[in-house]
Amino acid sequence: MKQLWEISTTECAGSKESIMLRGNVYQIANGAMGYRGTLDEFGPAEAVGITLAGIFDQVGEAWREPVNAPNGGYTRVSLDGTPLSALDDTVVAHRQVLHFRDARFERETVFAVGGKKLTLRSSRFLSVVEPNLGVIRLSVSCDQDADIAIATGIDYNIWDLNGPHLRELTPSQSDDLLCVDARTHEARKRVAVAEAVATELGGSQPLVAENRNLRRFAFRARAGEIYVLDKFFAVFAEQDSPATPPARGALELVKRARQLGRDACLAQHAAEWQSRWARCDVVIAGDDEAQQALRYSLLQLLMVAPVQGSANSIPARALSGQVYKGAVFWDTEMFMLPFFLHTYPEKAVELLRYRIRTLDGARRKAQTEGPGYRGAFYAWESQDTGDDACTYFNIGDPITGRELRTHFRDKQVHISGDVALALWEYFRITGDDRMLREGGAEVILECARFYYSYAHFKKDRGRYEILDVIGPDEYHERVNNNAFTNAVVRETFAIAGAVVAHLERTHPAELKTLLAKLDIAGELPAFADAAARLYVPAPHPKTRVIEQFEGYLKLRDASVEELKAKMVHPNEYLGAGQGLAVPTKLIKQADVVMMLNLFRARYPTEVKQANWRYYEPRTEHGSSLSACAYAMVATEIGEGERAYDYFLKTATIDLEAKYKVYVGTTFIGGSHPAANGGAWMTAVFGFGGVLIEENRILIQPRLPRKWRSLEFGLEHRGDRFQIRITADRVSVEPALTNRHEHAFMVAGEPVTCARGNPVTVEHGRSKPALSGSRAI
Amino acid sequence: MKQLWEISTTECAGSKESIMLRGNVYQIANGAMGYRGTLDEFGPAEAVGITLAGIFDQVGEAWREPVNAPNGGYTRVSLDGTPLSALDDTVVAHRQVLHFRDARFERETVFAVGGKKLTLRSSRFLSVVEPNLGVIRLSVSCDQDADIAIATGIDYNIWDLNGPHLRELTPSQSDDLLCVDARTHEARKRVAVAEAVATELGGSQPLVAENRNLRRFAFRARAGEIYVLDKFFAVFAEQDSPATPPARGALELVKRARQLGRDACLAQHAAEWQSRWARCDVVIAGDDEAQQALRYSLLQLLMVAPVQGSANSIPARALSGQVYKGAVFWDTEMFMLPFFLHTYPEKAVELLRYRIRTLDGARRKAQTEGPGYRGAFYAWESQDTGDDACTYFNIGDPITGRELRTHFRDKQVHISGDVALALWEYFRITGDDRMLREGGAEVILECARFYYSYAHFKKDRGRYEILDVIGPDEYHERVNNNAFTNAVVRETFAIAGAVVAHLERTHPAELKTLLAKLDIAGELPAFADAAARLYVPAPHPKTRVIEQFEGYLKLRDASVEELKAKMVHPNEYLGAGQGLAVPTKLIKQADVVMMLNLFRARYPTEVKQANWRYYEPRTEHGSSLSACAYAMVATEIGEGERAYDYFLKTATIDLEAKYKVYVGTTFIGGSHPAANGGAWMTAVFGFGGVLIEENRILIQPRLPRKWRSLEFGLEHRGDRFQIRITADRVSVEPALTNRHEHAFMVAGEPVTCARGNPVTVEHGRSKPALSGSRAI
Repeated sequence: MKQLWEISTTECAGSKESIMLRGNVYQIANGAMGYRGTLDEFGPAEAVGITLAGIFDQVGEAWREPVNAPNGGYTRVSLDGTPLSALDDTVVAHRQVLHFRDARFERETVFAVGGKKLTLRSSRFLSVVEPNLGVIRLSVSCDQDADIAIATGIDYNIWDLNGPHLRELTPSQSDDLLCVDARTHEARKRVAVAEAVATELGGSQPLVAENRNLRRFAFRARAGEIYVLDKFFAVFAEQDSPATPPARGALELVKRARQLGRDACLAQHAAEWQSRWARCDVVIAGDDEAQQALRYSLLQLLMVAPVQGSANSIPARALSGQVYKGAVFWDTEMFMLPFFLHTYPEKAVELLRYRIRTLDGARRKAQTEGPGYRGAFYAWESQDTGDDACTYFNIGDPITGRELRTHFRDKQVHISGDVALALWEYFRITGDDRMLREGGAEVILECARFYYSYAHFKKDRGRYEILDVIGPDEYHERVNNNAFTNAVVRETFAIAGAVVAHLERTHPAELKTLLAKLDIAGELPAFADAAARLYVPAPHPKTRVIEQFEGYLKLRDASVEELKAKMVHPNEYLGAGQGLAVPTKLIKQADVVMMLNLFRARYPTEVKQANWRYYEPRTEHGSSLSACAYAMVATEIGEGERAYDYFLKTATIDLEAKYKVYVGTTFIGGSHPAANGGAWMTAVFGFGGVLIEENRILIQPRLPRKWRSLEFGLEHRGDRFQIRITADRVSVEPALTNRHEHAFMVAGEPVTCARGNPVTVEHGRSKPALSGSRAI
Repeated sequence: MKQLWEISTTECAGSKESIMLRGNVYQIANGAMGYRGTLDEFGPAEAVGITLAGIFDQVGEAWREPVNAPNGGYTRVSLDGTPLSALDDTVVAHRQVLHFRDARFERETVFAVGGKKLTLRSSRFLSVVEPNLGVIRLSVSCDQDADIAIATGIDYNIWDLNGPHLRELTPSQSDDLLCVDARTHEARKRVAVAEAVATELGGSQPLVAENRNLRRFAFRARAGEIYVLDKFFAVFAEQDSPATPPARGALELVKRARQLGRDACLAQHAAEWQSRWARCDVVIAGDDEAQQALRYSLLQLLMVAPVQGSANSIPARALSGQVYKGAVFWDTEMFMLPFFLHTYPEKAVELLRYRIRTLDGARRKAQTEGPGYRGAFYAWESQDTGDDACTYFNIGDPITGRELRTHFRDKQVHISGDVALALWEYFRITGDDRMLREGGAEVILECARFYYSYAHFKKDRGRYEILDVIGPDEYHERVNNNAFTNAVVRETFAIAGAVVAHLERTHPAELKTLLAKLDIAGELPAFADAAARLYVPAPHPKTRVIEQFEGYLKLRDASVEELKAKMVHPNEYLGAGQGLAVPTKLIKQADVVMMLNLFRARYPTEVKQANWRYYEPRTEHGSSLSACAYAMVATEIGEGERAYDYFLKTATIDLEAKYKVYVGTTFIGGSHPAANGGAWMTAVFGFGGVLIEENRILIQPRLPRKWRSLEFGLEHRGDRFQIRITADRVSVEPALTNRHEHAFMVAGEPVTCARGNPVTVEHGRSKPALSGSRAI
């Protein structure tokens, strides 16, 4: 039976690849930093990484990427003079666990040296209460008396993809506290790590060598006795507390934490996690595999959710390392945001504030990417400033060893609309317009302005067109009238009109100020015209298939196998210029199906069915964003089994870690928070059948056969519901704090639900019977 | 000293490459067929080719290309039983000559076998009076008595690039006439070759073996005596005489020719050539190298000029073989047409009628290339039907062995405008509107219609734009607002208006019929709007540089050497998708400079100068169309020496045969009639400074220093002038048949010139003095 609240393994990572993957699977994070799932004694060769959120650095012409901090969690133990490592053959047993409840990583390894067995345990977490803090409890015991040495402190040998990012690394020790102070390469910003221990092991000796700032405890251990050492490490960067030097901040924090003690730190941390799970958990009965995978996915999202007030977002590989430059992609708005928006909107606020904060970067991009672009063209790969970290040559070609020109940066224009739609969706779901008034409306208007400057009018056909783009399917670059892109652009123009109308009605003075600031009032009629006359490819009258872009249907069919057989190199990229997929119908990921999912309220089932069936066999799923789109649409068209397969594929992606780790010559391993978000959407929107309409919430369940029940929380306009779906009934339980009455349509039955008034609707084959609240 | 009316060599072609190149350099042609410059005894291994004009065939999925006929010119001679070949070491002396005056190829080879020396001579021409006829005079003599055998007839071992195109090859002999009848692969059209000889060698024996249909003369030769054999061969294809089977037509022609006799055939042929040279020759005094090269260039053009009434055009590699699929490109309208238009307009008629004849092919291309294209989108590579022979994958990649997706076919849209401009230019120069009325106006309107369906309107900037094209510089595909293309498109819209206005004034009923037939009257205002508001990149206000396309100036600079150093394969193509030149400013050929040349009356000298200087160092001249554009503009901006260098490069391209013969994996060897035309343009328009304005002819000479004089004929509106330019005077001599008085502006001096009234204008440093006719 699957464990429902943990994952564990009893194998030691052996190969380089398994160490890399294990590092992803067992990572922990707290929004401010991620700590890869490596072991205490590991170093840069094993890809130890403490990746910092929102702190970036560039060395020369190499990729700009997040900074990895010195490892304050480093410890090595030796037994009778023999150093111990889980990579050596002194290991006789090993177990490591990731606890979902409190995002805590534990390891227990038994080593045998000269007939003696030593057990090393450690338990670590990154505090969600003190986002700069990591805490580790270490313990050792030996079955016989033995000489044990524990060297612990900060390892400042740092694993970087395109580093070294930290220089002037300066170790110091004073008052039993260790510190490593450093500066970033590019901006010379300070980054400091401090470490303190609490232990009864007695005195220690400083040990500073080989880029490690350690202290060493050496003692005679008695058989069977357990020796405990608690470690506290803190990472501060110059931006964390502008007034205080990072080293001082870090030192003060570890002192404070030590004073509080490890158990108290853990208690605070675990309490916060308990509250998170209470809001966000999804419970599946009858399918432990799905339960474990989905909960692991939610854990991933909750671990990397940005720190309150940070206005940070979640990168495509979250905090699992420096892959994809630690950049934020459309993944966040399209795949991760819904989970937060419907369960934990405070985190959605941070994600969206990040886009408001980086609006100027988007404006700069429009101006420089030109010609004649105006408004906000958001970065395809967005870091701290919103300038685009995506290079024009973004994928290495293993055949020639040269970099391939890709158009992700300059042509994947749907990104601006993705941001605009996300801002509007926040307002639609929460009913809270503060985000719009505090920069969101400005973003939306600037995105519409960008699109107007990007669009062309086809006089010959009396319509606006969006030319020369890349849609979600990145194997086909520079296409015209991509259905997904055009739909997003049209929606952006519509939203621009809606936001103006809303502010005009509710905050006319603010609107006036905003329009004047942007000098945009004169452009509003043009946006309205574009909203009305922008071409969005429609379903074919007979086949109901929507052409992905102009000319797609003229391309030839090709299977992945056929293309693979033609490859000159196994890691050959299938897109970009002359890639093997370019002249074929093979697509990298859901594109039309993604659009049908995004605008799922607008397309009838037969269109979804026709397109799912047309595009599904033509999709490689070369992106982790693909499977959940196919899963969600599959739930709606009676493809329940396929939906379930795609759901599991999405939900287990990081757990099973079977994804490809190279595209061309570029390493892309790491976690997949967008797929994690997709798993939640498939469970709740797909199987749960939740759809938020203008003035009511639809619930049209279609559970996989083996799921006895599905239960989840849902926040809506400041209120909250617990929803439980079984094979024959749906219950909606409003929170005791709810303030409003809400309309639902449950399994075809209109009901309302207010505080103190839970609703249960019978469904299934029999005619739905109503219990609880009145029908409307 | 260079021979001025011939080229010759005393070397025997040895290597495969020299045989290939010699085959190009010494080719002869008569508009109906080309005969590569190979020797009598050569076969397919030596790339013997008799390439037929206007007859195409495709085998399977290989490239469709012109048909090569069986070789009716085949002869092999043996001495005392030893077969003789110029490739063997029995050769003791060899000389071969191409006579410019009558496009006649001669060879003389002395062989030594067993102490005896045999001299073999042959002289061959393709009749310009009987376009299906080839005539060869062979003679042998030996310095001692010897047994000589001559086997002569038709070799139907055929050299093909993508064949075999002929099948069911059937030899026959009767009444001393040889014949090989065959059918093409694709359309099963008959092609037949007949051969007859006239000789006093006595009786012969049939010898049909190894795909050769021969007869064998064997005789005892007396020392010193010359034995002569005249060969007549004819090639007919099913389209030549619809009523008669090709074999019968061919047999009748060779019989008739034999009756007339070789000398009479040659006399007719030579008389016609004399008349051609009288009209078209350009005489340079003081520079034999330039004289020989230019005259060789004109010979090439005159040899391949289409047969009267054929409505054929001239392919990019003329009739030198099957390279480039025997297809007609923009080369014809832009580079070859001016020579014919100004010296031999009857041939210009054929070239343009070819485009009228293939209008339906252009319409089909617009419909299928879509989306929403209307009108006429001419083929990038046009064969007999006007359907596009250009494939979407038109260049082989030597690195991967795969075909590269190129956009020549679908995006090089300037081709339609090139055709429209050429038709209008014919009217402008000849004053004859019959071409317009007999299909030309229809072509122009359909081209404008195509462009309107292709154009987009940029509301944000109030202008039409032409997006996603390839300009002349093919290294940069899919660019927006290419200066050359936009200028050509705008001109097409303007011409559409002009042709309607002209017909309205002169032939209103015909116009009405045409507009009704095309149902296009309602679109004319849109064309006028586009002519007025189509964006054409203008010179930068400060630098005067015109940006080749949107974003060009943002690309990085790179030299050919730098890119070559990065090549993985020496034949790597620099464009297409990921080609090394794509992200750089390096261009394949003149593009902006081509535009400045095409519209040279409209741009001031400083703009020409700024752009020539900007683009010239950034041009690879990877196309033979490039050098002449730089040459012509150089003459106007005081870059006389560079102009001369580029002129020589253009004029000697086929003579020196140093061009590259592979692009990617594709063989591209053969003749370069566009460069030949460019050489004429540079001489007459460039150095001669001829510019035909609305109502007068400008002559602003700028001769290279060492040219003592430049003399050429010029036809204008049915009249004719002989123009002679020296360092200090220009004389214009009207033909005795001229009907009108013409205005000239000679070296800044306005003069008029009518029959019987030659004009001479002094120029140079001293103030121009006037002699002859009155100044206006």
